[in-house]
Amino acid sequence: MKHFSLAEIQTWERFYRANFINSLTGFKSVSLISTKNANGQTNLGVFSSIVHIGSNPALVGYINRPLEAAPHTLANIEATKFYTINHIQPSFVGIAHQTSAKYDAAISEFDAVGLTPEYLHNFEAPFVQESQVKYGLELQEIMPIKLNNTFLVIGKIICAYLNENIIQADGFLQLEKANSMASNGIDAYYETNLHSRYEYAKPEKISQKI
Amino acid sequence: MKHFSLAEIQTWERFYRANFINSLTGFKSVSLISTKNANGQTNLGVFSSIVHIGSNPALVGYINRPLEAAPHTLANIEATKFYTINHIQPSFVGIAHQTSAKYDAAISEFDAVGLTPEYLHNFEAPFVQESQVKYGLELQEIMPIKLNNTFLVIGKIICAYLNENIIQADGFLQLEKANSMASNGIDAYYETNLHSRYEYAKPEKISQKI
Repeated sequence: MKHFSLAEIQTWERFYRANFINSLTGFKSVSLISTKNANGQTNLGVFSSIVHIGSNPALVGYINRPLEAAPHTLANIEATKFYTINHIQPSFVGIAHQTSAKYDAAISEFDAVGLTPEYLHNFEAPFVQESQVKYGLELQEIMPIKLNNTFLVIGKIICAYLNENIIQADGFLQLEKANSMASNGIDAYYETNLHSRYEYAKPEKISQKI
Repeated sequence: MKHFSLAEIQTWERFYRANFINSLTGFKSVSLISTKNANGQTNLGVFSSIVHIGSNPALVGYINRPLEAAPHTLANIEATKFYTINHIQPSFVGIAHQTSAKYDAAISEFDAVGLTPEYLHNFEAPFVQESQVKYGLELQEIMPIKLNNTFLVIGKIICAYLNENIIQADGFLQLEKANSMASNGIDAYYETNLHSRYEYAKPEKISQKI
């Protein structure tokens, strides 16, 4: 295997380095985060830095880039406190990626790319109608990361929408049956195949496949 | 699609809810985090909450569970400042999962499950020899998340090891060629297939496949 030092990585051209570093950290969950502002205008953006923080309470975080690079999603969440996270399926992955373009604040990415905002059960923020797995969140905390001016935005899951046929008997969701995608790097989208599930591991014996 | 409310989710049995919530948030990067303590004893644990924070500087975060549940990795990182993150491949996924068992502090998970610690180029923390994509980090910041007593642990990438044949001309890493796995939920491991890469998106036109 080849060794890459920080000294070498720092000499690389900016986009080459960004592609390398963004894929070095492994496959990522990728979803569309949907919000509206205080006037009801919708906003939609693709995010690949979504992280599970806890199950009870059900807390989910995402990394918001510095405000000058990505202001609208975070501003809307701060203003309205509610937002939705919507999995991406192959049927709309190209236009989901397109939401990463820097549209003016006056333009809704729903309109620009051709996705459909959907309001469900009086939840305040719009869902993406095309998405097959989606959940609604209420803002809990915005933690500034001073190291690079990003933010860890933490929300609590308030509701979820999905087809019951992907739920296994123990509550596990077969996301591959819903065709939810994973991502890698800045711009690559993947389909997945289940390899294995394992028992809860205990020190006395090696965990076996379920 | 079926609607699941927070009120309903809160009534569920604990493991059912944990499986549901952990898979609702989508596919995850999963890796082994390797450390040693001040006396040189090694520790290894599987983590699925690794999140890209920035490319320049190259910052990576992971969520460490509350100290009473997962004390050793974080204590070692605090004590020694250096750690490694090692992708998981199918050839050792079962024993990688086994590192999630609660071993005594006196036992190294490397020995308990049968993986090989490897010291490379004088980097202070051990790598997992069996892993085909791995990188070394220096601790930058530990941010307590008071909402549920977890921690966002942020490190800077100092070095990386991988086979050059997975690097594309633009720096993107074809992780599927290295057989790096993704995870879902608490205990499921996935292989992946590249679906598509897309151009850098601009407002003027819909981004096309690369």
